Amino acid sequence: MRFLHTADWHVGKKFNGYDLLADQDKILDQIIELAISEKVDAVVLAGDLYDRGVPPTEAVALLNQKICSLNLEAKIPLLAISGNHDSGVRLEVGSPWFSQTNYHLHTRMEQAFTPVVIDDTQFFLLPYFEPIAARLYFETDVKNIAEAMVLVIDKIKSAFDPALRHVLVTHFFVAGSMRSDSETKVEVGGLDSIPSELLTDFDYVALGHLHGKNAIKHPKIQYSGSPLKFSLSEVNQEKGVFIVDTTANKRHFLPLVPEHEVRVLKASYEELLDPAFYQNQQREDFLQIQLTNRGIIPNLMNTLREIYPRILGLERVAGVNRQQVATTLRKTQSPEELMGTFFEEMTGEKLTKRQTEWLNESLSSQNQE
Amino acid sequence: MRFLHTADWHVGKKFNGYDLLADQDKILDQIIELAISEKVDAVVLAGDLYDRGVPPTEAVALLNQKICSLNLEAKIPLLAISGNHDSGVRLEVGSPWFSQTNYHLHTRMEQAFTPVVIDDTQFFLLPYFEPIAARLYFETDVKNIAEAMVLVIDKIKSAFDPALRHVLVTHFFVAGSMRSDSETKVEVGGLDSIPSELLTDFDYVALGHLHGKNAIKHPKIQYSGSPLKFSLSEVNQEKGVFIVDTTANKRHFLPLVPEHEVRVLKASYEELLDPAFYQNQQREDFLQIQLTNRGIIPNLMNTLREIYPRILGLERVAGVNRQQVATTLRKTQSPEELMGTFFEEMTGEKLTKRQTEWLNESLSSQNQE
Repeated sequence: MRFLHTADWHVGKKFNGYDLLADQDKILDQIIELAISEKVDAVVLAGDLYDRGVPPTEAVALLNQKICSLNLEAKIPLLAISGNHDSGVRLEVGSPWFSQTNYHLHTRMEQAFTPVVIDDTQFFLLPYFEPIAARLYFETDVKNIAEAMVLVIDKIKSAFDPALRHVLVTHFFVAGSMRSDSETKVEVGGLDSIPSELLTDFDYVALGHLHGKNAIKHPKIQYSGSPLKFSLSEVNQEKGVFIVDTTANKRHFLPLVPEHEVRVLKASYEELLDPAFYQNQQREDFLQIQLTNRGIIPNLMNTLREIYPRILGLERVAGVNRQQVATTLRKTQSPEELMGTFFEEMTGEKLTKRQTEWLNESLSSQNQE
Repeated sequence: MRFLHTADWHVGKKFNGYDLLADQDKILDQIIELAISEKVDAVVLAGDLYDRGVPPTEAVALLNQKICSLNLEAKIPLLAISGNHDSGVRLEVGSPWFSQTNYHLHTRMEQAFTPVVIDDTQFFLLPYFEPIAARLYFETDVKNIAEAMVLVIDKIKSAFDPALRHVLVTHFFVAGSMRSDSETKVEVGGLDSIPSELLTDFDYVALGHLHGKNAIKHPKIQYSGSPLKFSLSEVNQEKGVFIVDTTANKRHFLPLVPEHEVRVLKASYEELLDPAFYQNQQREDFLQIQLTNRGIIPNLMNTLREIYPRILGLERVAGVNRQQVATTLRKTQSPEELMGTFFEEMTGEKLTKRQTEWLNESLSSQNQE
């Protein structure tokens, strides 16, 4: 059989304050279209459906709509688990109904011990869990995830049907993986990660949690990566999904095209403001701007945001010419104006009326001392 | 056909700070047992399933479990709507799956226009909605619920099958009803209520929103009332469910027995502390204590709570003998002690160390003036 492997949708996430919902809407549609056009027998969603336990209602509505269109309309089986960002209890509502249309959503550790079988493959859906869950279930002193996993994987293997393929779907840090900046670290040292040796008896391990698909290089263990870039550290990552053929024991990657790319844009202020320059740019993208100018530029961020609405941050790659800046400023500006310019330069915001009052009070009291 | 009519479960609600979840667990089991023993063809749940849009996870788990056991295990059709306390969007998740097992959960106004038919009856499930929903749907200037209802009921009636009975399930204030203290008032004047004349073409109107079953006396319009008492104003209300027979056009009330009753207990302090008295009391009940003593009693609330763990409040029904109190106190207590006793009398709490410091500071600064 063939399935599509995705994870870490993080519906409802913001990226440096920008709402990603419209971008997520588009990218999830692409995943559904791929599932249909690739004629997969199932979609595997390896955790972090939402960005948080109590997502905004808009995120709830969006995810609900996407899952309906995938499972009820396109009638594609969906195998999903909760991740560390999801509230298992909240996500679980309705799951006994979902399984009637082959939407299997597992939110409790022990659900992994009963495989979901599709064609030639046993799927073991192991959601993110805390060591306490294993401690209660196995009634033994389990200190961390590494210890829990020995018991969990052992129990899963006891349910192996040797005539079938075996796929593990889970949401943890596998020892030796590489991280991005957008993941929430849940492991302490190596104790809360899964040693990869534990996973070698599976034909494929479909992982969620780390947002880069290349987080671990292993013949059988694969992070799908998130469908969108969620941090600047992912700027050079290729985002997409995996199509896994369990019969042929092969997988291949299919890229996704985001509505707005994440890019680093290196230019001078003059270039950035030049229509000839910005009309050739995808100026709606999420941009980290590397400014080549060294001098001070009044009202910098506000001016740039009028042209580039999704600026993630701004760096001065050539440094700042402090002497020139100081000379220019001292010649032209009062201390009050200087502070205002500095504040704007640093924060991209003008001083509010209240802040200006505080500043003036502070400057005048210093003069008196 | 016959159905059970209930509403206003408010799962996750607290009552004067006391968690009701264990009580709700028991009372919902009683409702399910009644539905089974009465062999009803459906259960109607007329809104306010939860007490708030984002209920605590324990409430989510409890309601999920109850609905599973009613609809999936006992296989009883469930017709539910969202109330003003529910978040329609959050509640809606999974509803396309629910309807496959005859759990019809309506969370949007326009869903009322497609009836759910069971045997000889058309059910119109009209959730709580805001006037804006009617404004958008009908594309006309609808100012309030009274205006919206004219359009909504008219459209519902256009779907009437004259060969069948017609039941409206909704969650609003019907003009002329009486309130309890535990309801959240959503209507302004009469404009956000439904005139009862609008509802006369239905064979039965199964209402939620008001917590007393006798809120309105009408041959066809009935509030089921909440299954538990949620305020002292409900102390004399009988709580239960209605069994409605649409074929015979009859309804009768079945009472529920709460784990802990809400009661007023009038007694003297000496009686309250006397084992011969309290061993004959249901001292675990929710109690409003009417104290007959007139004198001051140190550490009153703390002492009583050791015997009566669910005290809602305490009244001095004979008043306080101010002169006796004042004389006793002045003879025996310093100003600091007096304030401490007074504070405890009023709040049931001892002064904290910090509060005692403030008190002492305050008293000593007054002495200096």
